[in-house]
Amino acid sequence: MTFEVTILGSTAAVPLYNRHPTAQFVQYENTCLLFDCAEATQIQILKYKKKASKIDHIFISHLHGDHYFGLLGLLSSLSLQKRTDILHIYAHAGLAEILTVTFRHSHMNFTYPLEFHEIVPETEQVLFENDQILVRAFPLRHRIACHGFVVEEKQRQRKLIKEKMLVDFTIPEILALKNGENVLREDGTVLSVEYFTQHFEPRRYAFCTDTVYTESILPYISHANLLYHEATFLDDMTDYALMTGHSTARQAAEIAKKAQVKRLILGHFSIRYLNLEPFLSEARPIFPETYLASEGLSFEIKPSVW
Amino acid sequence: MTFEVTILGSTAAVPLYNRHPTAQFVQYENTCLLFDCAEATQIQILKYKKKASKIDHIFISHLHGDHYFGLLGLLSSLSLQKRTDILHIYAHAGLAEILTVTFRHSHMNFTYPLEFHEIVPETEQVLFENDQILVRAFPLRHRIACHGFVVEEKQRQRKLIKEKMLVDFTIPEILALKNGENVLREDGTVLSVEYFTQHFEPRRYAFCTDTVYTESILPYISHANLLYHEATFLDDMTDYALMTGHSTARQAAEIAKKAQVKRLILGHFSIRYLNLEPFLSEARPIFPETYLASEGLSFEIKPSVW
Repeated sequence: MTFEVTILGSTAAVPLYNRHPTAQFVQYENTCLLFDCAEATQIQILKYKKKASKIDHIFISHLHGDHYFGLLGLLSSLSLQKRTDILHIYAHAGLAEILTVTFRHSHMNFTYPLEFHEIVPETEQVLFENDQILVRAFPLRHRIACHGFVVEEKQRQRKLIKEKMLVDFTIPEILALKNGENVLREDGTVLSVEYFTQHFEPRRYAFCTDTVYTESILPYISHANLLYHEATFLDDMTDYALMTGHSTARQAAEIAKKAQVKRLILGHFSIRYLNLEPFLSEARPIFPETYLASEGLSFEIKPSVW
Repeated sequence: MTFEVTILGSTAAVPLYNRHPTAQFVQYENTCLLFDCAEATQIQILKYKKKASKIDHIFISHLHGDHYFGLLGLLSSLSLQKRTDILHIYAHAGLAEILTVTFRHSHMNFTYPLEFHEIVPETEQVLFENDQILVRAFPLRHRIACHGFVVEEKQRQRKLIKEKMLVDFTIPEILALKNGENVLREDGTVLSVEYFTQHFEPRRYAFCTDTVYTESILPYISHANLLYHEATFLDDMTDYALMTGHSTARQAAEIAKKAQVKRLILGHFSIRYLNLEPFLSEARPIFPETYLASEGLSFEIKPSVW
């Protein structure tokens, strides 16, 4: 089961130095999600050879333009390309009004149904769920209503270890083992779940932008395999970060450490920083497994089994 | 007096093949204008080393997204970059509502005043005027209200030919000659305007997108030094062009010929065309001075004097 996050944008607010504002393409097997959709996201999708047509769910963290100004163009293009599948958008209520007003004036007839799902400020919500994953929204602390998202893999059945399988396994025995149950045979022998099967640890990806340093998010991101946390500034601008509703690289690393995640991606860099190496130098002493959100870079979350 | 048109976008509807939807940066001496502002225009401005901060007037032809979806990001970025000069936007009324709703939800405080000027459908209007140029809007025929724009240089004073100037020219004589008047001296000699000065032919640039073939625009674009006319399709799609409110390369060339303009730029190419050479092959037999809107390309309109 592929689980992969591709960075389409890495900068805060203004495009510069070939960096674009926030967007991420998240793929879980055949389910493609888009997290934020800044201006030129559709162009970034083309550039990094992802397929916009495969995206069925778009999650917008908040209504600052650098997180959704590319949505209007993407939605238009999908219609011009004759999409027919339903497309789900998850965002704060204002976006519905913006889309309605915008497309009313263009007299655009969509070729596909667009379903808007409201994210209610200050609440935790499960936004989307299928038989493999769910996407949960949780409140961040920013200047306007803002949510983080976490993609949670559901508990999968245990996997039989091929090399150990006995030729006389019956179907009911296989199903029981996959469901995590030991099997007691009539002859008194026991087929041990621990011996014959592997356990999959459910994987999680958490996306946190834009936010001040806040430990209120720890319950949602705890032990995530991968955490994206904004780091708009460096440590010497901690006060300014707080004032503008943002975090520093040090703060992102501290959150990652406290949440005991496996890996951390930093992004949403202020355009005052041309060189991004100091973000790593600041974060890695606190949280060594820190990486920069470089555009086009994919982070794969591999299954962990035991 | 520099008069130059730089192509920032050349494609119709959807960005593809590294082509972007419509935007043009027009510079007349120190006055910078933007005609249409599709998604990623602010990125194209950076790429082609123009200065967004120098733009004081933005003209939007109509409210299809591929002509203005980059405006929201550009306006935001100018504010984040602390612009203080007033910025004028000229567009159909719906855009004011779109901007109001969008920026209300982002709680954005602009650092500069934004002045909206409504273009009234189906009318001719002078939108902007300074002591050097004026910009006139005139109706096009498209699926929704749509205007073309023409930048008209005002009649300049005649220019004295340095090599011919007499050492005893008085200031009143110089002013009279510049104003096109012959000067009768007390000794009976005449200082001839035709001999001592050059005449500047006022220059004009006309921008026509999106529109069907219509001769109703001829009075506005007649004898323009440079005409941009959309050519979304080739001749074999004439019926489809009419149905969708667009033109073919042949039709654009015919308009250029009838209007007796000096040069024609074709643009707004449908994404069905990867190779654009057929647009030239179709137009040049009718109007030889035809060029393609290639992104980054600048067309200079040089003064014609006699």
